[in-house]
Amino acid sequence: MTSYTQADMLDIGPEEFRRRVRSGEWQGSAHGLVRGYAMTDIAIMPKEYAFDFMTFHQRNPGVGPVIDVTDVGSPRPPLMGPNADLRTDIVRYQVFVDGVVVDEPADINKYWRDDLVGFVLGGGSSTKWALDEANVAFKTLGVFSTNIPTIPAGPFRGNLTVTAKLFRSSYDAIRAIQITSRHYLSHGAPIHIGDPKAIGITDLFSADLITADDLASPTDRRTNQEVRSWLSNGGVLVYWHCGATNRKLAEEAKLPLMIVDYPNTMFVTDKRAEEIAIF
Amino acid sequence: MTSYTQADMLDIGPEEFRRRVRSGEWQGSAHGLVRGYAMTDIAIMPKEYAFDFMTFHQRNPGVGPVIDVTDVGSPRPPLMGPNADLRTDIVRYQVFVDGVVVDEPADINKYWRDDLVGFVLGGGSSTKWALDEANVAFKTLGVFSTNIPTIPAGPFRGNLTVTAKLFRSSYDAIRAIQITSRHYLSHGAPIHIGDPKAIGITDLFSADLITADDLASPTDRRTNQEVRSWLSNGGVLVYWHCGATNRKLAEEAKLPLMIVDYPNTMFVTDKRAEEIAIF
Repeated sequence: MTSYTQADMLDIGPEEFRRRVRSGEWQGSAHGLVRGYAMTDIAIMPKEYAFDFMTFHQRNPGVGPVIDVTDVGSPRPPLMGPNADLRTDIVRYQVFVDGVVVDEPADINKYWRDDLVGFVLGGGSSTKWALDEANVAFKTLGVFSTNIPTIPAGPFRGNLTVTAKLFRSSYDAIRAIQITSRHYLSHGAPIHIGDPKAIGITDLFSADLITADDLASPTDRRTNQEVRSWLSNGGVLVYWHCGATNRKLAEEAKLPLMIVDYPNTMFVTDKRAEEIAIF
Repeated sequence: MTSYTQADMLDIGPEEFRRRVRSGEWQGSAHGLVRGYAMTDIAIMPKEYAFDFMTFHQRNPGVGPVIDVTDVGSPRPPLMGPNADLRTDIVRYQVFVDGVVVDEPADINKYWRDDLVGFVLGGGSSTKWALDEANVAFKTLGVFSTNIPTIPAGPFRGNLTVTAKLFRSSYDAIRAIQITSRHYLSHGAPIHIGDPKAIGITDLFSADLITADDLASPTDRRTNQEVRSWLSNGGVLVYWHCGATNRKLAEEAKLPLMIVDYPNTMFVTDKRAEEIAIF
C-alpha cells in the first residue's frame, strides 16, 4: 500500500485524487487537499424522492446548492465529473435506512440500484482557496447544530447546521463575506454574524457535529487559548451553511434508502472552485 | 371596465398588479411595469415530469433559474407570492398538449389538477431597473432562436432562445455584464457577445420569437435607423438567456399537459429584483 502524506495530496488533480480514494490508497479527509478544486457533498436516493429533495434545496438555497444531478441509475455526475463514480470515489459513506445509519462502507457498490439518483451539492471547502489567496485570517471552530428551521419539502425538514469561523478582525470578516458571496454554489454568503447563542449554539469550544480538529490540517490547528485571545481582541464570528445538514435531512426524512458522504469526507469535482464562482 | 394607462401601472405593488390582471382590468404586457419588482416566467406540469424539469434547469442554469416551486396541487408559490394564484394572475397562458398549443386562455382554472406543480422561473425583465438606475444606455432588439444546444434532461431538450440588446458603447456593455451577473436568479450574466451569426441569428431586425416593439414601452421604441447608427458607432451586441426557451421545451417535450405564460406576459412576484440579487 502506497502511503501518502497530506503534502503529497495537495498538488494533484481530481482524477488522481479519486483514483487514490477508489484504490484505498487514501483514506483520510479531503479538507485542504487537491488545491483549488471544488469539493462537494453528495446525496443518493431513489428517484421517487428526488423531486422533493431538489425542491428542498431550491427553498433553502445555501444548504447544499445542487450543482449536478446524475441520470437515473447512473453514478456519473455529467457536469462535475463525467468520469467519476459516486459509488467508489469518496473515502467513506453513510447508508441510511428509515433514518438510521446501517452501514459506513468505503464504497456503495452493493447498495447501487437502477432507480437511484445522485446529487452533487456545493460545499464550503471550495472557498478555502479564495480566502487563502486573499490572505484572510480565520480559524474554523467546527460544525454545529442550530435552532434555525428550514422550509420543508415533502419528507425533508429539520434545523440547519453551520460551520463557524472566527475572523481576526472586522476587516477579515467583511472580506470573507464578499469573497464567499461570489461562491454562491459553494454555500455562498454566510447566514449569521456574531452571537452564537442567537442561533442555538451554547458552546463554541465543543462542536457537536464535526470538531475543529477534524476540519483542520495539522498546520491549521489552534488552541482554545488562541481562540479566546482573538475573541477578546476584535475577532468576529461568522457562520455558513454546512453540508452536514444533509445528514440531518436523512435522519428526518426516513427514506427506505438514502446515502451521503461520511462526515469530513468529500467528493472532489473536475471543476476549479473559481470555475463555478458567479463573479 | 377601468382603463389604465402604462403610467398607471408603474408605481403599484405586485398585489395590486395581480388583482388588476385577475379581474381582467389589465390585459397588456408586464414589461416595464410595477417598478422594481422581480418578474418571472412560469411553467406548470404534472408532478411526474417535475424532477426532469428541475434537472434540466439545473444543467442549464441561466435559462430559467427555478426561484420557486409550488407544493403538488397548489397554485401558490410559497416564496415568491404566497397569496398569488398561478392559475389567474398572469394576463394570458399557453396550454400545450403533446407539444402543441391547444388554448391561449386568460386563466387556467379549468385545466387545474391535483397532480400539477408550478415553477416560477427568474426572468430578465427584473434587471431593467438595475440597468436604468446605473444609466446604462441600450436598446432591446427582440427575442431570437439560436443554434446553441442545451444539455437535455428526460424529455426536455432543444436550442436556446436569447434576448438581444444593443449597448451604446463598450463601457455600457461592460457595466451591463457586471450588473446582470449580480442578478444570477434573473438569467444572470450574458451568454454571448458580438456576432449574431455565431449563434445562428441571421437578421437582427426581424426577431422570430418576440419583436422589439412588443418588448419595449412606447417611450423605449427605436427605429432600425437608430440601431444601425449605434451599430456603426461603437455599439456592442450582448445576448442573454430568455424565458421563451421554456416554450421551446414545451414543444419538444410533448408532455400530455404543460402550461406556460403567453409570450410577453409575466408573473410579478412579491420580491423586489434587488431582493433576489446575489450581491
